[in-house]
Amino acid sequence: MSDPSFIPEPCDLLVRADTVVTQDDARSIFNGAGIAISDGLVMEVGDYAALDARFEPAARLDLSGRIVFPGLVNGHTHLPMTLFRGFADDMPLMEWLEDHIWPVEFQLTDAMLEIGAKIGCAELIRTGCTAFLNGYFHEEITGKAASSAGMRAVVGEGFFGFPSPHFPSAEACWQVNRKLKEHFQNDLLVRTAITPHAAFTVGPDDLTASYALAEELGIPWQIHLAESPEETAVCLEKYGKRPVALLHGLGLLSGRTTLHHCVDVTDEEIAILAETGTKVVHNPASNLKLCSGISPVQKLLDAGVVVGLGTDGASSNNQLNMFRDMALAALLGKVRHEDASALSAQSALDMATRGSAECLGWQGLGRIEKGCPADMIALDLNSPNLMPVFNPVSHAVYASTGMEVCMTMVAGEVLYLYGDYRTMDVHELRNEALQAKKWVLSKAKN
Amino acid sequence: MSDPSFIPEPCDLLVRADTVVTQDDARSIFNGAGIAISDGLVMEVGDYAALDARFEPAARLDLSGRIVFPGLVNGHTHLPMTLFRGFADDMPLMEWLEDHIWPVEFQLTDAMLEIGAKIGCAELIRTGCTAFLNGYFHEEITGKAASSAGMRAVVGEGFFGFPSPHFPSAEACWQVNRKLKEHFQNDLLVRTAITPHAAFTVGPDDLTASYALAEELGIPWQIHLAESPEETAVCLEKYGKRPVALLHGLGLLSGRTTLHHCVDVTDEEIAILAETGTKVVHNPASNLKLCSGISPVQKLLDAGVVVGLGTDGASSNNQLNMFRDMALAALLGKVRHEDASALSAQSALDMATRGSAECLGWQGLGRIEKGCPADMIALDLNSPNLMPVFNPVSHAVYASTGMEVCMTMVAGEVLYLYGDYRTMDVHELRNEALQAKKWVLSKAKN
Ligand SMILES: [Zn+2]
Ligand SMILES: [Zn+2]
Repeated sequence: MSDPSFIPEPCDLLVRADTVVTQDDARSIFNGAGIAISDGLVMEVGDYAALDARFEPAARLDLSGRIVFPGLVNGHTHLPMTLFRGFADDMPLMEWLEDHIWPVEFQLTDAMLEIGAKIGCAELIRTGCTAFLNGYFHEEITGKAASSAGMRAVVGEGFFGFPSPHFPSAEACWQVNRKLKEHFQNDLLVRTAITPHAAFTVGPDDLTASYALAEELGIPWQIHLAESPEETAVCLEKYGKRPVALLHGLGLLSGRTTLHHCVDVTDEEIAILAETGTKVVHNPASNLKLCSGISPVQKLLDAGVVVGLGTDGASSNNQLNMFRDMALAALLGKVRHEDASALSAQSALDMATRGSAECLGWQGLGRIEKGCPADMIALDLNSPNLMPVFNPVSHAVYASTGMEVCMTMVAGEVLYLYGDYRTMDVHELRNEALQAKKWVLSKAKN
Repeated sequence: MSDPSFIPEPCDLLVRADTVVTQDDARSIFNGAGIAISDGLVMEVGDYAALDARFEPAARLDLSGRIVFPGLVNGHTHLPMTLFRGFADDMPLMEWLEDHIWPVEFQLTDAMLEIGAKIGCAELIRTGCTAFLNGYFHEEITGKAASSAGMRAVVGEGFFGFPSPHFPSAEACWQVNRKLKEHFQNDLLVRTAITPHAAFTVGPDDLTASYALAEELGIPWQIHLAESPEETAVCLEKYGKRPVALLHGLGLLSGRTTLHHCVDVTDEEIAILAETGTKVVHNPASNLKLCSGISPVQKLLDAGVVVGLGTDGASSNNQLNMFRDMALAALLGKVRHEDASALSAQSALDMATRGSAECLGWQGLGRIEKGCPADMIALDLNSPNLMPVFNPVSHAVYASTGMEVCMTMVAGEVLYLYGDYRTMDVHELRNEALQAKKWVLSKAKN
C-alpha cells in the first residue's frame, strides 16, 4: 500500500481458495477468493488480493486448487444409530424395528451411545457437515460428543407415548428436556429442541404439552411426520385425520415446527405448511431404503415452504453423508415431478445449507457471509471425478461423493484437514466400533 | 511344514486381507483370507495361513484391515463424455442434446477424446472399476486409453443412421468396426462390440446388418433400448411397434445382445427378454437425471434376465462411480417395487460384478475364483462411514462412497494403491482437463 497512514486490520485467519460459493442471498460466487475470520466469525469474504492487502492475519490457510462451500447442515439424524449401520437391511419397516433394532436399542448403555455418537461425528466431519439436528435417547451424550468434536448440534430427547421404556411419565420427560437445555446453556456449539417421535406414537395431549414446553423454553419443536402412506392410514384409523391435519387441528404447525419426511402430503396440506411457516426436512435415502416413497419436494419449494435436507439415522441410509442426499434429492426430484429441470443442483445445495440451517433455527449457518459463523468446507479439485470444472454447484451436488472434502471448519477452527482429524482419534474409534459391534450382536434377538 | 519333502509352489503375488468377498457361485466370503496370483490369474483363494504355507510368492500385498471384492464392471458408459461433466444440467433431454451436447460433440478432436477417456479411466480406477463396456466415437482412442491405464474395456464405435456426421455410409461404419477389432486383436485388455445408438435413430435394415456383422465377428451387440416412454412413443409412431417388439421382430434379441436401460418395458416384454437370453444393463443415476423413469429391475431378475449395472456417461450422471449406482439400484428398487426387501444389497453387488461381466461377454470377470482373472479391489475399513462392520456386502452397497477403495488391481497388476496411480499421471491430467474445459467452452453454442 502506498498510503503511509494505512494500518492493516488484524484477523485470526485468512483463507485463500480458487473459488468460494457463498450461498448468500445473491448466491455470490467469488473466484480467486479470500475469507477473513476472527472470533469464529467471517469478517469479510471477497477478492483475495484485496483482503490480503487489508488484513494482517495471525494465521493463513491456503486452499488453492480447492472450492470452499458453507459447511453442510444435516437437518435430521439419530447419530448413535451408526451402531446399527448395516446390522439389518432389506426388510419391511416393522420387521426391521421389532425384530432387529428395538430389542437392542432398548438395552443401549451410555458407553455404547457415546461410541455411536462419536462414529457419527467423525463421518459428518469427514463428509463436510458442520451442524446437525438430532433426536435420540440420552441426548446429553450426543451433545457432548458433538461439542468435544468441535461440531454444532441441536439435540432433543426422543420420546414415544408415556409410560415408555425411557420415561415413566410425561413429567419425567419434560424434566429431562429442561435439564438438557440447562446443561448446554453455556456451550456455544450445542442447543436443544423438543422431539416427540411421531403423531401415531405420541398422543395428542402429550404432543400439545411438548409443544407448550418448546414455546416456554423458546426452542424448536420437531417431529417425524407423514413419512409413509402406512402412517397416514394409522392416523386416519386412530384419529380420523391425516397427519398434517391432525397437527394443524392441535395448533402445532408454526415457524417453531420442523417436520421430518413429509412424503405423503397432498397439495392442500402443502398449502397449510406454507401458510403456517412450518419447515420440512427431506430425507431421500432413508425414504427409499424403508420404502416410504418420494417426497414432492419441488412442490413444497414452489409453495414457499422452507425445506432442509437430512440423512436420517445410519441404520436406514446407511450413510450420514449429506453429499449423497444432495445428489439423491436432485436426481429423485426429476422423476418425482416428471420434469428434468425440477430440483436443480442449486436447489439441492440450498436445502443442505440455508434450508437445513433454518430448520435448526440457527441464524447465520449455511452461508459464508460477513458476520456469520465461520463454518465452511473445501472440496479438492484434484479428484478425477471433479474434472473438468464448469460449475462448482453442479459438482458439489452431482459429481462429489463427499470424500473430496479436504477441510472442515467450525467457528474458525479446522476440525479436519487432509486425513488429519484434529478433534478426534479415528484410529482408536475403530477399536471402539469393534467393541460396539460385539455388544450389539450379544444383545440381538436370536 | 514338518514334511521334509514339501516344496512350496511359486506364485507371483500373495494378497492378505481381513475379508474376501468372492462373488463365486456360492457367494463364499472368507475371513482371514489370502489370494495367490500368477500370470494375472487367481491360483487360489481361501484361508491365508493355508495359502501362506503352500505358496512361495515373489511379492506380497498386505491388505489387513481391508475387505477385498472383485473389481466392479461398468456395463454401460461413454467414457470421453467426462468432457461434458456438469457442462449442462437440469434440463429436458432434447434441449440438453440439441443446444448443448451435440453442437460440441460433433466437433470433438482426437486430442479431446483422449483427455476425456483418460479422466474417465482415472475416475473408474479410483472408484474400484476394473472393466467397462463403452460406446462412443473414434473408439480406438478409448481402447488405447484403457489399455495404457491397465484396465479392461470392450469398445464399440457408436453410430446413428447413415449418412451421419461420422459415417457417410453403413459400409464405411462396418469397415471401421472391422478395423477396430483387428486393431486390438493382440491386446489382452481390450475387446470390441457392435454398438448402434438406438432403435429410433438407426433404421431396421442397418440394425439387422450391424447384428449380422456382430455375428460374423463373434462379438457382442449392444444398443440403448426402451430408455423412456418418449422413445416408446417414437417407435410406435415410426414402426407401429414398441422397442422390444421391434427388435424381437427383426430377430435381434439373443444371448449376443445387451440392451441399455429397459426402463419402459412391460411384463410380456420382460418374458421375451428372458426367453431369448437377452441381457440388460441398468443405469439408475442417468435414468433419474434425464427424467426417464425407474427400471423394474427386480422383475427382470425374477424372470431370469441377466442384469448388469452401468453409470452411462458422466454428462448424465455426473459420476462414473459404480458404488453410487449400486446404492441407487438397491434404494430405488424398493420404491419401484413397493417392497423394502426388493433389490437387496447382494443383488446390487451381483449386478455390478457378475451381471455386468456377462453383459460384456467376458468370462471369469466379476468374481474372485481359481482360474479367473485377478481383477480385484480393496475397501479401507478405517473410514468412519464403514464403522462398525456387520456385513461387508451391505457396506459395499449402502455405506461406501467408492472413495474407500484403497487398491485397484487388474490382471494381478496394482493400478492404484492409497493415492498412488501407478499407470496414470493424475496431476498432469488436471492441466489437460483445464485445456479441455476451455476447448468445450470455445465450441459451445452461444
Ligand atoms: Zn428419523
Ligand atoms: Zn448411454
